[in-house]
Amino acid sequence: MATQGQVITCKAAVAYEPNKPLVIEDVQVAPPQAGEVRIKILFTALCHTDAYTWSGKDPEGLFPCILGHEAAGIVESVGEGVTEVQPGDHVIPCYQAECRECKFCKSGKTNLCGKVRTATGAGVMMNDRKSRFSINGKPIYHFMGTSTFSQYTVVHDVSVAKIDPQAPLDKVCLLGCGVPTGLGAVWNTAKVEPGAIVAIFGLGTVGLAVAEGAKSAGASRIIGVDIDSKKFDVAKNFGVSEFVNPKDYDKPIQQVLVDLTDGGVDYSFECIGNVSVMRSALECCHKGWGTSVIIGVAASGQEISTRPFQLVTGRVWKGTAFGGFKSRSQVPWLVDKYMKKEIKIDEYITHNLTVGDINKAFDLMHEGGCLRCVLKMNE
Amino acid sequence: MATQGQVITCKAAVAYEPNKPLVIEDVQVAPPQAGEVRIKILFTALCHTDAYTWSGKDPEGLFPCILGHEAAGIVESVGEGVTEVQPGDHVIPCYQAECRECKFCKSGKTNLCGKVRTATGAGVMMNDRKSRFSINGKPIYHFMGTSTFSQYTVVHDVSVAKIDPQAPLDKVCLLGCGVPTGLGAVWNTAKVEPGAIVAIFGLGTVGLAVAEGAKSAGASRIIGVDIDSKKFDVAKNFGVSEFVNPKDYDKPIQQVLVDLTDGGVDYSFECIGNVSVMRSALECCHKGWGTSVIIGVAASGQEISTRPFQLVTGRVWKGTAFGGFKSRSQVPWLVDKYMKKEIKIDEYITHNLTVGDINKAFDLMHEGGCLRCVLKMNE
Ligand SMILES: NC(=O)c1ccc[n+]([C@@H]2O[C@H](COP(=O)([O-])OP(=O)(O)OC[C@H]3O[C@@H](n4cnc5c(N)ncnc54)[C@H](O)[C@@H]3O)[C@@H](O)[C@H]2O)c1
Ligand SMILES: NC(=O)c1ccc[n+]([C@@H]2O[C@H](COP(=O)([O-])OP(=O)(O)OC[C@H]3O[C@@H](n4cnc5c(N)ncnc54)[C@H](O)[C@@H]3O)[C@@H](O)[C@H]2O)c1
Ligand SMILES: [Zn+2]
Ligand SMILES: [Zn+2]
Ligand SMILES: [Zn+2]
Ligand SMILES: [Zn+2]
Repeated sequence: MATQGQVITCKAAVAYEPNKPLVIEDVQVAPPQAGEVRIKILFTALCHTDAYTWSGKDPEGLFPCILGHEAAGIVESVGEGVTEVQPGDHVIPCYQAECRECKFCKSGKTNLCGKVRTATGAGVMMNDRKSRFSINGKPIYHFMGTSTFSQYTVVHDVSVAKIDPQAPLDKVCLLGCGVPTGLGAVWNTAKVEPGAIVAIFGLGTVGLAVAEGAKSAGASRIIGVDIDSKKFDVAKNFGVSEFVNPKDYDKPIQQVLVDLTDGGVDYSFECIGNVSVMRSALECCHKGWGTSVIIGVAASGQEISTRPFQLVTGRVWKGTAFGGFKSRSQVPWLVDKYMKKEIKIDEYITHNLTVGDINKAFDLMHEGGCLRCVLKMNE
Repeated sequence: MATQGQVITCKAAVAYEPNKPLVIEDVQVAPPQAGEVRIKILFTALCHTDAYTWSGKDPEGLFPCILGHEAAGIVESVGEGVTEVQPGDHVIPCYQAECRECKFCKSGKTNLCGKVRTATGAGVMMNDRKSRFSINGKPIYHFMGTSTFSQYTVVHDVSVAKIDPQAPLDKVCLLGCGVPTGLGAVWNTAKVEPGAIVAIFGLGTVGLAVAEGAKSAGASRIIGVDIDSKKFDVAKNFGVSEFVNPKDYDKPIQQVLVDLTDGGVDYSFECIGNVSVMRSALECCHKGWGTSVIIGVAASGQEISTRPFQLVTGRVWKGTAFGGFKSRSQVPWLVDKYMKKEIKIDEYITHNLTVGDINKAFDLMHEGGCLRCVLKMNE
């Protein structure tokens, strides 16, 4: 390609400061170095983790940066030694890497690869611990190793999932974060079995994906809990069979659920990021075996608590990141499942905008009616 | 038998008030009613749960009562409908019942039987919700459905494990609580696999049984943590391979363990009952898979806490009661394992006294050198 080995100047949404509107800028994107891949991003969605860092509440947030981590695109060029993808491949950038060689990858017990973590945490690339983004020579930090709010981005090769070129990128971009997180929490982390009773706290994209996963796992009852009753109509389409609004009750929500289920649920999922709801989610679990999975990301410094008796009497407290999916190995499999109509994606997309409207897209996230807003990167 | 159907008057250690010395009294023990078994207790040990209730810190403690739940004896008589044991059978009373019919027993997921729980929690028998113990007509509460600090006790038939009559009752009485709890926490709750790195917080009877269980499961490193360095010499005999005294370090103990193990342990066990140690035990676990099991019983009202990030990044928080063993089914199996020398018991018995010295036995529990003190009930 003509651009290979060259610096590319393109549009990106830059977060200069916490809580200030993103600015669409001309950004210089350096060519990929050894073990790196430059991707032309075609579509990106917004997730709450972007909003969290942008809000300034994330103590590890670095500014100026280019946010974004739920996207799809086409490989533009690759650096030295990159063998698994080549220019033209359709890909999903994955904030959760998979190197297949580190202690984590080889354990067979987790999807949390350690290979590039220190670099992505510091907003740089591993090779030279520098950024590939700059504006007039001033570096702009990477974010989560993905930075998909840019028409071109550079990622580590261990963070790229090569997918079916037939898959519609404006849909499968959602497989970069929220949907797999919910599905995987059910299938990989909780391992919900047929007949199980499930409670889901929070019916946003993640909670709805949990519902979808639970339904496909054969759960007998899927109880959705949300303080916004408008969520129920949509939630029905994802498998939620009963709806509870904590505001309708005087007693604690965990008691409501224990009463509704003759002793508690088999599995619960916290899909909000609220530590007090995390406690409720644990305590509504059935004595002896109930398992609660934390998915929501709480504000920095906040803590969960409960009486240890809750655990001594058999409840299990877990969490999940990216639903336990191994990114490079399993995102392509999820794409295939979508192509075979075995999982939903389209139904999570409530809004479509272009990158120029990204600030409006952030506003939409805080409105009840929005699940995912997909941005077209090239107007 | 001559005593069958009769009230038996015998010696028992009665706890009249929290924290006041137990009093050896002549107690009347009523005959067993339908579904009940009267047992001649020959040997009983003391456990921290006895001391906890006796101390008055247990808000559910009822006085006056007869404590004790780690014992062995011989069936004296049985009530109507009792088919699984008969007079003369050697038995271990089990505070954790197993009815094989309730939701819990049938779940296949837990050992926490629900059948007689409301009665044992209220210090009475299920049949008539009354006590079988009295002194001159005044009732004395049962404790944990066992009350083994009496020469005769009455228990529900679902709480009696029939064991090999060849087994020495002065030893196997320990299989009523502490030793199975530690072994089962490893085998049933954590399911430690060969090669795993294990940390044990607290090296009393329970912690040492965890070590023994971990060694037999093939753990590669067994790190014992105790604030009493004298514990280490004994602990070596139970499989502890490394010893850490938190008092020797300035940094938090979880950091000490993470540093010692290149990222954290695979399994940790809290065998103390200290909520801040429970947090350390969780946080010393390896990211991605480390599992922490709470065994210790914390003082009433105390809470555990941590950052949810600890769970989102793959750690699992669990607990165990009676090590997850099904009492009637598995205590006899543990007795057989002891008879085949596959598990230790003798090594946990540091003191032997008679029931008349029970207050001295409680004092011994608070001394570092005491693991289990076994009381002979018939002088
Ligand atoms: N662990 C991971 O890998 C991972 C990945 C993606 C997202 N997340 C996190 O998952 C969470 C959910 O993401 P989302 O995109 O679905 O969010 P969302 O904001 O779309 O959905 C949250 C829902 O929770 C409801 N809610 C808020 N407070 C509530 C309360 N007290 N009780 C009941 N319901 C309440 C809201 O009405 C909303 O419907 C976020 O914290 C996000 O950061 C985690
Ligand atoms: N979950 C169950 O089913 C079950 C059953 C039996 C016992 N228990 C509980 O298990 C716990 C242990 O019982 P045990 O008989 O072994 O007790 P123990 O008192 O003999 O042993 C406790 C050990 O912990 C050590 N310790 C105290 N504070 C410490 C600290 N801050 N850091 C490190 N070490 C510390 C002590 O030196 C001692 O060696 C108790 O809380 C008991 O009630 C639970
Ligand atoms: Zn996300
Ligand atoms: Zn890896
Ligand atoms: Zn005990
Ligand atoms: Zn039962």
